[in-house]
Amino acid sequence: MAKSPEEEHPQKVFGWAARDSSGVLSPFHFSRRENGEEDVTIKILYCGVCHSDLHIVKNDWGFTRFPVVPGHEIVGVVTKTGKNVKKFKVGDRVGVGVLVGSCKKCDSCQQDLENYCPQVIFTYNSLYHDGTITYGGYSDVVVVEERFVLRFPDNLPPDAGAPLLCAGITVYSPMKYYGMTEPGKHLGVAGLGGLGHVAVKFGKAFGLRVTVISTSPKKEDEAINRLGADAFLVSSDPAKLKAAMGTMDYIIDTVSAVHPLAPLLGLLKVNGKLVTLGLPEKPLELPIFPLVLGRKLVGGSDVGGMKETQEMLDFCAEHGIASDIELIRMEDVNKAMERLAKSDVRYRFVIDVANSLSQ
Amino acid sequence: MAKSPEEEHPQKVFGWAARDSSGVLSPFHFSRRENGEEDVTIKILYCGVCHSDLHIVKNDWGFTRFPVVPGHEIVGVVTKTGKNVKKFKVGDRVGVGVLVGSCKKCDSCQQDLENYCPQVIFTYNSLYHDGTITYGGYSDVVVVEERFVLRFPDNLPPDAGAPLLCAGITVYSPMKYYGMTEPGKHLGVAGLGGLGHVAVKFGKAFGLRVTVISTSPKKEDEAINRLGADAFLVSSDPAKLKAAMGTMDYIIDTVSAVHPLAPLLGLLKVNGKLVTLGLPEKPLELPIFPLVLGRKLVGGSDVGGMKETQEMLDFCAEHGIASDIELIRMEDVNKAMERLAKSDVRYRFVIDVANSLSQ
Repeated sequence: MAKSPEEEHPQKVFGWAARDSSGVLSPFHFSRRENGEEDVTIKILYCGVCHSDLHIVKNDWGFTRFPVVPGHEIVGVVTKTGKNVKKFKVGDRVGVGVLVGSCKKCDSCQQDLENYCPQVIFTYNSLYHDGTITYGGYSDVVVVEERFVLRFPDNLPPDAGAPLLCAGITVYSPMKYYGMTEPGKHLGVAGLGGLGHVAVKFGKAFGLRVTVISTSPKKEDEAINRLGADAFLVSSDPAKLKAAMGTMDYIIDTVSAVHPLAPLLGLLKVNGKLVTLGLPEKPLELPIFPLVLGRKLVGGSDVGGMKETQEMLDFCAEHGIASDIELIRMEDVNKAMERLAKSDVRYRFVIDVANSLSQ
Repeated sequence: MAKSPEEEHPQKVFGWAARDSSGVLSPFHFSRRENGEEDVTIKILYCGVCHSDLHIVKNDWGFTRFPVVPGHEIVGVVTKTGKNVKKFKVGDRVGVGVLVGSCKKCDSCQQDLENYCPQVIFTYNSLYHDGTITYGGYSDVVVVEERFVLRFPDNLPPDAGAPLLCAGITVYSPMKYYGMTEPGKHLGVAGLGGLGHVAVKFGKAFGLRVTVISTSPKKEDEAINRLGADAFLVSSDPAKLKAAMGTMDYIIDTVSAVHPLAPLLGLLKVNGKLVTLGLPEKPLELPIFPLVLGRKLVGGSDVGGMKETQEMLDFCAEHGIASDIELIRMEDVNKAMERLAKSDVRYRFVIDVANSLSQ
């Protein structure tokens, strides 16, 4: 008979889990493997609340393995290292993001794109190499293979920096890959949530002119005065939209609901690039004329590999980039999830794990 | 009162025109401007029959200015040059493609991308700088500004080389722009018509492995034995399609009817690139998951600028690339159009203009 989550491994761990698609999280005792030769054991300090966490606890995508412990924006301190671990020592501040394993042999892994490995192992709700389920960062301790652990720069705040491990790299990686970093170019950011607000910051750090594109006129003040965007475009106003046609070089589209691409493609100049990061459950309508007649492209991207994630953290440390967060205690996570579902958060909840998880 | 096409300019010209959306072409007397200081007058030898010609004579896109003289794959001989013309002299063999004018000042023009100039003037059915309608290559003479005339290499056949001026550059330009030229990579070519068969040849010239993707199993023999493709994939066979999933680096999609993109995106590897060249009249369905989870992109492209078109012709001369054609006489053009509408051509009709146009 399969062992219970509490008994299958030697290290006792405490966290919060959702037990069914109600998505309600509650205290959960489980276990993790003993620290192996390549492993790092981490005492978790902070964990961001990503929109994916909400999708998974609600089983929106249909593949949740309950009970599930979400959380893949983890910042903590090393408490143990395996004998082959070279990059980390006890006491180091580290980060863990969306992945904790991959095959290490395929083309993607060889190119430091473990995130696109067909056998990628996610930080929670995946099967690990040993066949047991992975549990995420809404918990006090995590054991992770060195390759998937990141140095967390000293001058990055560990709470506001945590969301960089998913939201940050999700935005940074496509900006680099698709060449959306040329100073002076004009970036549109569609949707001003967890991803969008970080995209504004990266855009400014790369020297771009940044316009936030949003359906909510009430976000204008924040976009410009709090986040530093150069302009704000209300996408529901046809006249304003029309006036802005053909003015943008790049657009980062963070909207995850089904939405029309045609207006965004219209905003782009010749050679413009539209990167979609959301995962709408249905296909979007793609008008082909603007693509062909303006040599525009629509591309996707999904987080980033370990090497690039480290590069991104170092870039953020250098440029003073972190998320704008609301720090919460673990016992408030269900309330936070409810607010997140309504996009009522500026702009990321982060759980103060170490100070609020008590057995 | 506006002058008639025959009287508005000093040079008398003879060609064939469609008079209404029946699309039937018939003999047509018209005129062209006197050769200006920057102009080259060209006696037309050959003109390819592009699918766009068919769309325009039938007014499929709703913006045809009748009577229309189609033809934008023109090869001819220089008979006159203006005093400021530097690149050409009388007797030179030259080509004219899809464009004959642009603003020369905008960002696109400054970057040798006249094809994306907002004021681009097409070879037929456009308004020229002087406000008169442009007429294409189904005619005996054309007058073109030097910037829009191409050197036609001596060792390119003038008949089979003519389609390179539209079909060739339409395929070549995106392969270069999107970086689809890395030797050893795997290219899929969807649709085996005027564009597709040239794409196979470019793919081989760049050192790619080329698979033709087609709904017609009967094209397999030709694709491999006549055009030199490495493999053939029947897209209507789900088992074969499934077996080929995730094997291609690039796909050139030449299908102009509305069609599903999902199978093509599935054929691509991580980082795969799908370039669409057709102009389906309705938006296509774009599934976002493969884009995001595999960092794939869908991009468009529309012919090429003058500099790149010259580069393409020189590349074709060097690599022995031309179109596979059926040479026809002008009086057979209506029959050819009927066959083209049924894709019954291998792979491009070219009109033997000089030998069949008689007044």
